[in-house]
Amino acid sequence: MAAPRLWSWHLSPFAGKVRIAAAVTGTELELIEIDPVQRPPRLRELNPAGRVPVLELDDVVVRESSAICDWLDDVGAGASLWPEDPARRAAARGLMRWLDDELTVPFFLSFRKEAFGASDGEPPDIVQRLRARLMRRWPKLEAELARGGSRWLAGSPEPTLADLSGMPLAVRVPQWGPQLAPPAELTRVCGWLDALREHPAVVEVKRRGRPAAEL
Amino acid sequence: MAAPRLWSWHLSPFAGKVRIAAAVTGTELELIEIDPVQRPPRLRELNPAGRVPVLELDDVVVRESSAICDWLDDVGAGASLWPEDPARRAAARGLMRWLDDELTVPFFLSFRKEAFGASDGEPPDIVQRLRARLMRRWPKLEAELARGGSRWLAGSPEPTLADLSGMPLAVRVPQWGPQLAPPAELTRVCGWLDALREHPAVVEVKRRGRPAAEL
Repeated sequence: MAAPRLWSWHLSPFAGKVRIAAAVTGTELELIEIDPVQRPPRLRELNPAGRVPVLELDDVVVRESSAICDWLDDVGAGASLWPEDPARRAAARGLMRWLDDELTVPFFLSFRKEAFGASDGEPPDIVQRLRARLMRRWPKLEAELARGGSRWLAGSPEPTLADLSGMPLAVRVPQWGPQLAPPAELTRVCGWLDALREHPAVVEVKRRGRPAAEL
Repeated sequence: MAAPRLWSWHLSPFAGKVRIAAAVTGTELELIEIDPVQRPPRLRELNPAGRVPVLELDDVVVRESSAICDWLDDVGAGASLWPEDPARRAAARGLMRWLDDELTVPFFLSFRKEAFGASDGEPPDIVQRLRARLMRRWPKLEAELARGGSRWLAGSPEPTLADLSGMPLAVRVPQWGPQLAPPAELTRVCGWLDALREHPAVVEVKRRGRPAAEL
């Protein structure tokens, strides 16, 4: 089998999540960098929604970052992305979804909307709304970390994919939106973001593959 | 261990997905019916977002329907919810997410918005927008079923959770919005919806548990 091919964009937080998961699980992928303004026709054949990440295997196409990470967790020879106990694993999975939807999406979408404008039917202040939503979520994340009683989510002694999913946010908040950082009194959140920035897989946040145009 | 407690609402498509998955995997749950207008304080302790479904285990709380279904698949003694092969399993998981986000959400949300009105910042014609989005997705579902070459999604010979997740939609479209049904020429989609309505787990779509007020 050829190395599985991951269609990716270096600025996508969800493609970043997959690149991080591949590094942690020790899975070799052929990384293809798309230009989102000129999406390659092959990408639309693989995923009619035209979105990355998409994983192209020999005879199966996997779309959606969490599904690709599940495959990496199944086949990878390296560390597992999840706690071993089924109940703790499920709790961590639920927290990952919350983090993705409630923190990662508002942050990254606000920059996309700032660059490309609001879509039809969206309020003109969509960027401010998304950022206000993110700022309301930081205290909830503090409460989640306090509830688990660990520096990582879901009370895990080691980072799970629920935490690692936050890595694109941890890297980009200080770079793109320092005014959107959590207030310093949220010490657990600030410590969590610091720990993510110090994790060895953080280099994956910015990794670009071979340009799709060269294929 | 007491039977795990599932906080549920009979009209929620995602609580319905969990009830269906519990039936298929043969897992006994204590079903608690909430009143979404008067959410029980205990629910907000379990899930600060106040949403159902939430699964309460002995010392762990699992939120988010897909995460709860993963737990059911891990511990259930009955049928598996997913193909055995990791690549096919991941592809089916990605399709489930697409179906949830692109078909189930627009349909059910349109009825919620019709009943309770648009939220702040939403366009006044949000109900029509959501329904137009659903109608644009039926042909894409037809293409997905054609691509898999089976009556079920992801080319599976048996229904996986990617299909079963569509059961609340299959039941409610003819009841609540017959004008939102797929056009008859989309024969694969129409056959898929019929097959879901004939599946034995379909009774779970409407199941109500013990009222939370009685706890």
